[in-house]
Amino acid sequence: MAATPATAYGTLAERFPDFDLKPPDVIAARATSFWDPSPARGACLFKPTSTDEVSRFMRHCHEERLPVVIQGGRTGCAGGAVAGDGQIIMSLEAMTEIEEIDETGRTVTVQAGCILQTLQDAVAEKGFLLPLDLGARGSCTIGGNVATNAGGINVLRYGMVRAHVLGLEAVLPDGTVLSSLNRMLKNNSGYDLKQLFIGSEGTLGIVTRVVLRLEEAQPHRDTALVALDRFDAVPLFLRHMQRHLGGGLTAFEAMWGDYYDAVTLPGHGHAAPMARGAPYYVLLDSTGNADNTETMNGGILTDALAAALDDGLITDAVIAKSARETENLWIVRENFEAITAQTPCFLYDVSLPMQHMDTYVTAVQRQVRQKWPANREQEGQCHVLGHVADGNLHLFICPFTDGPDAKPVADRIVYETLTPYGGAVSAEHGIGHDKKDWLGITRDETEVALMRRLKRTIDPRGILNPGLIFDMTGQD
Amino acid sequence: MAATPATAYGTLAERFPDFDLKPPDVIAARATSFWDPSPARGACLFKPTSTDEVSRFMRHCHEERLPVVIQGGRTGCAGGAVAGDGQIIMSLEAMTEIEEIDETGRTVTVQAGCILQTLQDAVAEKGFLLPLDLGARGSCTIGGNVATNAGGINVLRYGMVRAHVLGLEAVLPDGTVLSSLNRMLKNNSGYDLKQLFIGSEGTLGIVTRVVLRLEEAQPHRDTALVALDRFDAVPLFLRHMQRHLGGGLTAFEAMWGDYYDAVTLPGHGHAAPMARGAPYYVLLDSTGNADNTETMNGGILTDALAAALDDGLITDAVIAKSARETENLWIVRENFEAITAQTPCFLYDVSLPMQHMDTYVTAVQRQVRQKWPANREQEGQCHVLGHVADGNLHLFICPFTDGPDAKPVADRIVYETLTPYGGAVSAEHGIGHDKKDWLGITRDETEVALMRRLKRTIDPRGILNPGLIFDMTGQD
Repeated sequence: MAATPATAYGTLAERFPDFDLKPPDVIAARATSFWDPSPARGACLFKPTSTDEVSRFMRHCHEERLPVVIQGGRTGCAGGAVAGDGQIIMSLEAMTEIEEIDETGRTVTVQAGCILQTLQDAVAEKGFLLPLDLGARGSCTIGGNVATNAGGINVLRYGMVRAHVLGLEAVLPDGTVLSSLNRMLKNNSGYDLKQLFIGSEGTLGIVTRVVLRLEEAQPHRDTALVALDRFDAVPLFLRHMQRHLGGGLTAFEAMWGDYYDAVTLPGHGHAAPMARGAPYYVLLDSTGNADNTETMNGGILTDALAAALDDGLITDAVIAKSARETENLWIVRENFEAITAQTPCFLYDVSLPMQHMDTYVTAVQRQVRQKWPANREQEGQCHVLGHVADGNLHLFICPFTDGPDAKPVADRIVYETLTPYGGAVSAEHGIGHDKKDWLGITRDETEVALMRRLKRTIDPRGILNPGLIFDMTGQD
Repeated sequence: MAATPATAYGTLAERFPDFDLKPPDVIAARATSFWDPSPARGACLFKPTSTDEVSRFMRHCHEERLPVVIQGGRTGCAGGAVAGDGQIIMSLEAMTEIEEIDETGRTVTVQAGCILQTLQDAVAEKGFLLPLDLGARGSCTIGGNVATNAGGINVLRYGMVRAHVLGLEAVLPDGTVLSSLNRMLKNNSGYDLKQLFIGSEGTLGIVTRVVLRLEEAQPHRDTALVALDRFDAVPLFLRHMQRHLGGGLTAFEAMWGDYYDAVTLPGHGHAAPMARGAPYYVLLDSTGNADNTETMNGGILTDALAAALDDGLITDAVIAKSARETENLWIVRENFEAITAQTPCFLYDVSLPMQHMDTYVTAVQRQVRQKWPANREQEGQCHVLGHVADGNLHLFICPFTDGPDAKPVADRIVYETLTPYGGAVSAEHGIGHDKKDWLGITRDETEVALMRRLKRTIDPRGILNPGLIFDMTGQD
């Protein structure tokens, strides 16, 4: 049976006298999310300070069939943490403790509400690297990172969050505390239950504590930007660089020429660190040990790029010679305000096998231009960049029209064009509420049916983040 | 409701006229497993040649509530693939095709019955590395590797099988084919269902096809053996080497002094590549690009070891100077016949945080000596080695007695001593039938209850590998 909708704040505060529930005006003083400045909505806001409090609260909600929306740093791109009027919000923001950095076992145990950057800094002080890094580092929380299986810029070398989580503690919808705080790299003792809670967007349990694997800090970083004259050369160049740099290649980001030209437009964007007009650009990082700066990383990177130029894989290359130059290269990839300023601008996050990428992008771009040939005297645009080595592209579609159908049409172009290539409608951002109509592009009915069976087994009353990822069927 | 026990071969052959079922004498012509040469048992043996055949067969078994035991290469160490009299065996050995090596996307799609080494060789021919490697490579199958989340010697750098699987196809106990053949590094479109089938030892579904991630081959490999005079130095030396070698450090195997001395005993074992008598030894591999052999890997490794000697982290070091010398170093770690010849010899596979390892090993060794002080005029022995960087130890216990209680007593010493350290009774070998009495050391009742709920949800009739990992309760 489905959960009943929650009632007004006054009633809730009466029914939950043991918990400190904040009223709607406190909620409305916050923005809906990082992406939406409008006042947030919800019947009440609860900020537990311990796992026990999360558990006791959920036991009540389960008994009374009250739906609960879970929030971390509210930086997600798929609307997964946005509550409606009348919904109970549980935010993990008060559970921020870094409980233990085990320098011998190389793990950190942390509460879910800790901000990613806070944790990165804390482990860096001990000489470790937390390999997870993404743009929202200053606001997003570890719990949200785990619940959404966050990706980011180091996935090529270190994997997504799933690869860093050794153990976790989660509270099930009925309040049961599941403690799987494993600290070893290897543990094949029974089902690996933590996998259920990683990337399921808080629909199966509330992640309260996490044990993460730490890596040795690699203090030296070299950054290079290269140009390529054909897409076929991108995967060949990637293989070439991995053969030369091995595990030292930590980032490999592609930018399509249109994107690069748009963000380096003279007078409007960044200084162009390399001639504009090439069809493709790749930005890459090589990291290693500081003691070998000159003899190892510098030399190897220079040699590998020289060989790539000789072989005709790339047509131009620059290596940053200072921290300032590194920043000037990365800003071209990370700051795309020149594009997003052209409102509306729709951001997409898809993945597909690299061999189909160029065909796919060309098809999307052609449809965008055909659909919006001359709004505001401009042709519609589709700018593309992404974690190409991971199969992950981000697309910015600018239709130059405010018409209400622009977003649905852009969605259709991006997702339907993906169908023949076995691609994913979400590479790293999740499905949330925003993309669930398109889940069927990536997952078939058998898969979604099994997802529903899992949801029904673990949350039989459907109270935890209801309606995320997929809708339940009449059977519930 | 539990599955009914299967009936005799004649009856089964009659009930399954569409399938080629082999009788018990064909089964008995095989060994039970790699570890047990006695004739295998079972009511009938079915070797499907396609996913469709697996599916149709399981649909029948589900309808008639017939239990099925799934087999791959039968090299598992926990008895997970051993069938009893009257049980139906399904072996994936006839589904061996390597369907596609995608050189651009760097993936391989393979049927579950393919032998690991066959696949390693096939991808190596194209310049790729399949990072999974373990002793049973010549017999074990990819399906078995996935079902048991195999580990091995490259986990430190590349992770366990779970990290290599991008997608898979599995047949559920009722015959439903779940096709999740994702080929991208990133795909957050809904629950990551493949995780259910990785490491659950074939109790939730039969893995029939797998998409694995490939890495660039790193053709050069340097091997070193070092001695250490205290255990505290082992984790410090590991950090030191990872700081210097970064992703180039691919193996880091520890041997306790007693082990090293036993396998290099003059006249009985291998030539000792380094003086015997040190308390600890570490064997390590550094891999990289052949083009940089002399200037990079050789130099960095030599420098890093010299610095470790200067800092007092290690007391001695040798680097192999030829393939022959590399082999002579690794044979000390991989060939322990001098120990296993002292029957009975019980092999264990545990993991625990590195900071507790030495205390744990000392406590186990003391109990072994106390329990078996002078059988056959020898003190009981416990030899220890393992993938120490992964928290994973293998213990060989030699009680020098054939008494029937020796194994249960050794089990108790190994597992009960593990309890205070949050260790795992299986690091990489799985639970199977053999260790399920000890699962409670590592997983609590809440976790096991959730495992049972998952099993019941996906295999409500309990027909797939019944009795593996945990027993079902009366509720089923």
